[in-house]
Amino acid sequence: MVDSSTSHVEANTHVSDFLLEDVPHLSDYIPDLPTYPDPLQDNPSYSVVKQYYVHPDDTVAQQIVVHKNSPRGTLFRRAGPAQKVYFDSEEVYACVVTCGGLCPGLNTVIRELVCGLYHMYGVQKVLGIGGGYRGFYSRNTIPLTPKIVNDIHKRGGTVLGTSYGGHDTSKIVDSIQDRGINQVYILGGFGTQNEAAMIFEEIRRRDLKVAVVGIPKTIDNDIPVIDKSIGFDTAVEEAQRAINSAHVEAESAENGIGVVKLMGRCSGFIAMYATLASRDVDCCLIPESPFYLEGPGGLLEFIEKRLREQGHMVIVIAEGAGQELIPRNDTSNKNKPDASPDDLVQDVGLWLSQKIKDHFERSKKIINLKYIDPTYMIRAIPSNASDNVFCTLLAQSAVHGAMAGYTGFTVGPVNGRNCYIPFHLINEGQKRVVITDRMWARLLSSTHQPSFVNPQHITEEAKVE
Amino acid sequence: MVDSSTSHVEANTHVSDFLLEDVPHLSDYIPDLPTYPDPLQDNPSYSVVKQYYVHPDDTVAQQIVVHKNSPRGTLFRRAGPAQKVYFDSEEVYACVVTCGGLCPGLNTVIRELVCGLYHMYGVQKVLGIGGGYRGFYSRNTIPLTPKIVNDIHKRGGTVLGTSYGGHDTSKIVDSIQDRGINQVYILGGFGTQNEAAMIFEEIRRRDLKVAVVGIPKTIDNDIPVIDKSIGFDTAVEEAQRAINSAHVEAESAENGIGVVKLMGRCSGFIAMYATLASRDVDCCLIPESPFYLEGPGGLLEFIEKRLREQGHMVIVIAEGAGQELIPRNDTSNKNKPDASPDDLVQDVGLWLSQKIKDHFERSKKIINLKYIDPTYMIRAIPSNASDNVFCTLLAQSAVHGAMAGYTGFTVGPVNGRNCYIPFHLINEGQKRVVITDRMWARLLSSTHQPSFVNPQHITEEAKVE
Amino acid sequence: MVDSSTSHVEANTHVSDFLLEDVPHLSDYIPDLPTYPDPLQDNPSYSVVKQYYVHPDDTVAQQIVVHKNSPRGTLFRRAGPAQKVYFDSEEVYACVVTCGGLCPGLNTVIRELVCGLYHMYGVQKVLGIGGGYRGFYSRNTIPLTPKIVNDIHKRGGTVLGTSYGGHDTSKIVDSIQDRGINQVYILGGFGTQNEAAMIFEEIRRRDLKVAVVGIPKTIDNDIPVIDKSIGFDTAVEEAQRAINSAHVEAESAENGIGVVKLMGRCSGFIAMYATLASRDVDCCLIPESPFYLEGPGGLLEFIEKRLREQGHMVIVIAEGAGQELIPRNDTSNKNKPDASPDDLVQDVGLWLSQKIKDHFERSKKIINLKYIDPTYMIRAIPSNASDNVFCTLLAQSAVHGAMAGYTGFTVGPVNGRNCYIPFHLINEGQKRVVITDRMWARLLSSTHQPSFVNPQHITEEAKVE
Amino acid sequence: MVDSSTSHVEANTHVSDFLLEDVPHLSDYIPDLPTYPDPLQDNPSYSVVKQYYVHPDDTVAQQIVVHKNSPRGTLFRRAGPAQKVYFDSEEVYACVVTCGGLCPGLNTVIRELVCGLYHMYGVQKVLGIGGGYRGFYSRNTIPLTPKIVNDIHKRGGTVLGTSYGGHDTSKIVDSIQDRGINQVYILGGFGTQNEAAMIFEEIRRRDLKVAVVGIPKTIDNDIPVIDKSIGFDTAVEEAQRAINSAHVEAESAENGIGVVKLMGRCSGFIAMYATLASRDVDCCLIPESPFYLEGPGGLLEFIEKRLREQGHMVIVIAEGAGQELIPRNDTSNKNKPDASPDDLVQDVGLWLSQKIKDHFERSKKIINLKYIDPTYMIRAIPSNASDNVFCTLLAQSAVHGAMAGYTGFTVGPVNGRNCYIPFHLINEGQKRVVITDRMWARLLSSTHQPSFVNPQHITEEAKVE
Repeated sequence: MVDSSTSHVEANTHVSDFLLEDVPHLSDYIPDLPTYPDPLQDNPSYSVVKQYYVHPDDTVAQQIVVHKNSPRGTLFRRAGPAQKVYFDSEEVYACVVTCGGLCPGLNTVIRELVCGLYHMYGVQKVLGIGGGYRGFYSRNTIPLTPKIVNDIHKRGGTVLGTSYGGHDTSKIVDSIQDRGINQVYILGGFGTQNEAAMIFEEIRRRDLKVAVVGIPKTIDNDIPVIDKSIGFDTAVEEAQRAINSAHVEAESAENGIGVVKLMGRCSGFIAMYATLASRDVDCCLIPESPFYLEGPGGLLEFIEKRLREQGHMVIVIAEGAGQELIPRNDTSNKNKPDASPDDLVQDVGLWLSQKIKDHFERSKKIINLKYIDPTYMIRAIPSNASDNVFCTLLAQSAVHGAMAGYTGFTVGPVNGRNCYIPFHLINEGQKRVVITDRMWARLLSSTHQPSFVNPQHITEEAKVE
Repeated sequence: MVDSSTSHVEANTHVSDFLLEDVPHLSDYIPDLPTYPDPLQDNPSYSVVKQYYVHPDDTVAQQIVVHKNSPRGTLFRRAGPAQKVYFDSEEVYACVVTCGGLCPGLNTVIRELVCGLYHMYGVQKVLGIGGGYRGFYSRNTIPLTPKIVNDIHKRGGTVLGTSYGGHDTSKIVDSIQDRGINQVYILGGFGTQNEAAMIFEEIRRRDLKVAVVGIPKTIDNDIPVIDKSIGFDTAVEEAQRAINSAHVEAESAENGIGVVKLMGRCSGFIAMYATLASRDVDCCLIPESPFYLEGPGGLLEFIEKRLREQGHMVIVIAEGAGQELIPRNDTSNKNKPDASPDDLVQDVGLWLSQKIKDHFERSKKIINLKYIDPTYMIRAIPSNASDNVFCTLLAQSAVHGAMAGYTGFTVGPVNGRNCYIPFHLINEGQKRVVITDRMWARLLSSTHQPSFVNPQHITEEAKVE
Repeated sequence: MVDSSTSHVEANTHVSDFLLEDVPHLSDYIPDLPTYPDPLQDNPSYSVVKQYYVHPDDTVAQQIVVHKNSPRGTLFRRAGPAQKVYFDSEEVYACVVTCGGLCPGLNTVIRELVCGLYHMYGVQKVLGIGGGYRGFYSRNTIPLTPKIVNDIHKRGGTVLGTSYGGHDTSKIVDSIQDRGINQVYILGGFGTQNEAAMIFEEIRRRDLKVAVVGIPKTIDNDIPVIDKSIGFDTAVEEAQRAINSAHVEAESAENGIGVVKLMGRCSGFIAMYATLASRDVDCCLIPESPFYLEGPGGLLEFIEKRLREQGHMVIVIAEGAGQELIPRNDTSNKNKPDASPDDLVQDVGLWLSQKIKDHFERSKKIINLKYIDPTYMIRAIPSNASDNVFCTLLAQSAVHGAMAGYTGFTVGPVNGRNCYIPFHLINEGQKRVVITDRMWARLLSSTHQPSFVNPQHITEEAKVE
Repeated sequence: MVDSSTSHVEANTHVSDFLLEDVPHLSDYIPDLPTYPDPLQDNPSYSVVKQYYVHPDDTVAQQIVVHKNSPRGTLFRRAGPAQKVYFDSEEVYACVVTCGGLCPGLNTVIRELVCGLYHMYGVQKVLGIGGGYRGFYSRNTIPLTPKIVNDIHKRGGTVLGTSYGGHDTSKIVDSIQDRGINQVYILGGFGTQNEAAMIFEEIRRRDLKVAVVGIPKTIDNDIPVIDKSIGFDTAVEEAQRAINSAHVEAESAENGIGVVKLMGRCSGFIAMYATLASRDVDCCLIPESPFYLEGPGGLLEFIEKRLREQGHMVIVIAEGAGQELIPRNDTSNKNKPDASPDDLVQDVGLWLSQKIKDHFERSKKIINLKYIDPTYMIRAIPSNASDNVFCTLLAQSAVHGAMAGYTGFTVGPVNGRNCYIPFHLINEGQKRVVITDRMWARLLSSTHQPSFVNPQHITEEAKVE
């Protein structure tokens, strides 16, 4: 599909009915790069494996449900070890940085990047950049070895520290160049991947032999193209505790209402999956599905109905839901440099709880509302077994990609197979719950909540899309 | 408290150097009550036990550390089965009610009251009063059998439902009289036990053969005389999650500060024990130990110091701490009838977090503060194994006491042995952490926090006490 | 498999380069079946969803990694609601049965079958068959309603009870016919799905309008074609506890060896994934990868080496590993009718532990070996959030399939999308870990264990395959 | 009670009606020891505490339930800081060793010994002795600082390593003398405390100024005098998992029997408390309560009865129960030097399971028995919050005692207060469940199991006692 003799990148090539979204390669802008046999060939763990190398033609289809005669759609380059690598093991000097908020699994990815580089490729030099992007130029670094990272996957958070902001492309690339770093692994979400793309562009501009690899990290699971991001499973699991507690509190009181705010600034995936997993939720509110409080078909009417029928109820609300309903009193936070996203969103859980209390106070009905915000308790736990395996594969895929000379890509699973995805696709916008899709219908069916939308309205929107 | 000339035990009798704080007995005000042999004698589980019955003289000393020639101090009647009981099993009609907020273990106590009555004494009629005190007269009841309560101890909350307020002595006693109930088990905290005393007084006034038994329930562990209240161990255990999360968040950020609010309106026991158990806490603030924010020796200075030394810190604050520092803007809640105590306390965690943020904003220092309020997640979990055993013993002690004809008492452990304690001692005031005692010194030593107090001041206070 | 001249879908049809493995349909053998509009159309949860119905042409590709010009490979019919259904809601009488050993998630599937039938399709009659296949004719049944199953997903095991054996095709189909049951949902593993196929064949022979749906249940994850089976994630998660304990025991002793036996009679998936997730394992032994004890390259030599280097080690062994090495002393169990598979396998964990102890006793070296068998503690826990969502989708897919008139199929995920899979593919043999594949190489690389195989040998085997 | 001017030890002194069981003091055999003011006086954490020092007269009564005119019974010296200490902080060189099997909390005790010595008394030199007693002379040591031990309480096991045997009094005391160690903290159970007494005697014989302090460690909770030993609460909590699993397995099968073996070689405390906490157990067998299998009133008859009534059952058996019933086929283990106690006990769980299977096979009744042995999974977990606080107090009490010049004692709680207890009382025999006491009757009442004893027999035994 790609003529490897002339170019590694022939992105957007239409071959019959599909499109390969390929990623950049160091050889695209650096001529005559030497290659080396993959050291995995001498690795006893891999020597007996016959089909270990990824064939350069291996791709993964984005669309998996096929209609007769439908086009195959977009394909991505499959991640995995290559028969020839573009780095000599002794030459590699890798660095790892974590940016943005916490999510379960960061330490596992750090661990597996280090262990993958050391044990699979014999790399000896890996540097941890401390405290996010600004660690590149604030000289806050720590050498990483398999011994140092050995147990870190059992702890939450990130041993490297993290921060928002601090991105300064030229200072960062200066630091990379000065230190002689030639593989940069960047863990972060939407904004971070954008900035990783800027670093890649600057590196390419300077013709540096430096591979830039993004590893998608967002607990909200809102990164496009990929199936899911690290820590999502763990987050949904841990959210069950909060929902259970809200349910117990609600059931034990007369007209008990439990309100749980879950993560999800733009996308309601955690709220939706946590609701589907729990079965104790009566209403799930997400940013993608607008709702309104007052009047017929509104949320307050539904709460009254459910309390009448059942005596108690549990509401799960994603942090980004209903933001358009909350009056903005103070926008000062928005202007702060390096503001954490937490500062940019009003606490919809507190707002909603107050609105519900006010409503029932007006109607002289006694309710017992308990509001639970488990956000930081969810973010900070260690990743579960499923996420550990997921993080391991992701980290190893990232290492394989960099060693094979690919750059300017994010690694992530597409239909269950890790692929190399060009930054621009990741940064095109956030993945959101499609509320005209089956999963959301499943949710509505499990909670028996109203859709809060005008069917007419949906039809028109669907047409526009 | 009881006329000793008629009573079968001598209350408040000074025997040499100790004082028995005895509890009322049905025979105090009802003459010629028949007695029955304890049905446990025919119970195969108990038949081989030789020393099963509590001797009427068995008492438990409140003071356990003794100096030479010191008086033995106060004694309490030891709980346990009596050789003669004052109720025929077939005559018993018991009821159970839960009042106030949730704490782990309520369902275990309910289960063991029911199973104890059925299996130990052959009682066939137990009624659950739904939704707190008002359930007595709002006809919200459910019959309780061993089968119905079989698995409830694995769930958090209370299957009976609970509420604040709703106490109306005469309506409640009318309901007890109308239904023919003759054993009343009341689970609740400080206020509830007060109201239980009023029910007992009214019942005695009406000369009813009804035993009124209080079972102390307060997650804050602030009930005087007794060692601890149900759910306390579970609460301290569960609080570790929140502290761990706060620690991970703080460690992963530059100048990270984790603030955890724990239960404890008047008493800081949960905060103190959770801090001692965790070892990750840098500062623990409780109602008993006043603190101040600004100036030398103040909290903000300490925070600055700890961040300089360590880069991050964790603060645990009991909900009742620092209330005197928070400006009251709105007292409307206090005037609401049946207000939950939650409404009467300002959220000190939010207030403190804002004060810290404001302080560092003024000094242009970037901090990352995460506030965690795990209150409802802690209250709502099922009791752990230790609390399950504790609840079982408490419930059985309550049943033994009522069957033996005692009334107007709360059951609770004194130095590890369950006793019958007269209501008036329970209601004299709340148990508080003694900050001139060793346990608080241990805490200070583990956190290395300042005491925030003027040693001079303490000395004077100690003299006054 | 299906006479395509009458069928409404073309099974096994080669359309250009792919093959649809279709499933039977009631209309294949019952002429002139009436159809009904899908009641979901009037369901408010689904009314706003535009693309809810599965298009009859929707299929899922089994092969997802594509080479240039490669054939598209096998396709499966995608699961989901159909625009026309073959059962009137009032006519449906469904039954559910669970067979074989426990795995996490059984109760969630039962719950969601019942709730799916009631809430999505308005079905009113669902019968639980108690105690496995023999419950059909031993009159051990229980009516299932949404209220009855409301909380069962929070409990481990199966509320229906389960058993091995008891299959008697004609007695079972007699019972189905006598009771007027027309939808049969069968949860079970390899053997159970085989027997479900026999029930389907007999039902077709009798021309009964009864849909037979298999739901794959095996904690070993060894069912072919499908991505994974229910409870697998939960099992891998729970296995971490045992591995952690083994690690702590091993680390705390001189020459400490922790041996953990995990489930996996024919397939080592749980052992492999638990090892990859844990990172504390030094050696993972599975049925697919033969090993030997003595001599150069053998397990005992490796244990000696690892103890010398590291002072302790953890071994994970799947229950089916090394069975060929264990001398058979007693085959009586194998002849028992209805023997549980547990009886058919020697306890390899005990055997291996003894072999290791014997070896080091011979060489006078003191070791401390602790053997942990967490099997029943893993099987019996409730499913985690991830498995809960998975079970929900699986159960709803099963219901959609039966309502749409499909029969004789197992429902399961293929590349992340639920499909209808003909029984014969499920029953062709067990899915096994491919030890020449990347995942196993990843494992070898993480444990640094020898492959215990002769590379020459592997090459030849690969050729044969 | 003790004339401090003449001697610190006046043990066994009868003062009126009680007996002080005092402990040795360094000044007993070393004349003219200098004393120092307690450095806690200058410690800011303690400076405001007025009643911090333990009065030399403070004692704790062993008997807490008092009858009128009963003697006060035995008293123990209360643990706590003394106003004068017998070590200068700079002179102290302490060491810590862990011996025997694992139990939760070892790392917490190690941590708090180190932190207590450093932070409370300004001690700078603490040595960890690796791998049990033999670490003293095999030069296996590690310096311990607050930084090194900071997080170890979150891990199970012991960071020092442990072993059975290896005790050689003179080699150990030589090593202590050679290294200049003057405080020895020994964590271990029955045997270990015996050997600690031997070390103390040898040290006294050599007139060394070395304090020898025992810290009781046995998960079985069988150490006499003291209320409970470390890790007991955690063990009972963790045992719930195994019992729950056994219950689920039993309930899900026809005639399902779950058998759980718990720790308890001589004493059934874990089995008894785990049973009381769980409420899912039908029969609890402990070493103290003999049982028999066959015939009327036997265990097999009871199993048949319970299966008939209930369809399933759960049996908990302590590892030391029924040992007298198991035929000894091989006593070779007993003769091995340094044999772990695990080798000395036959696996009663496997034996009982086989006996039950055999019985029902003979009667052609199908049962489903699942045997769970969670021993190593329980021993290896980190201590829970309750045990963490308990371990902290114990460790601090040990440090206070050694600093105050006491030696030859074990520290432990008596009626909730930590005391110094002379070795000889600890080593007099093991604490056992008293089956004629209330707690065991409570258990019988909760399981409704037969007592398996002849009431006549019990009466006679009680008389003999």
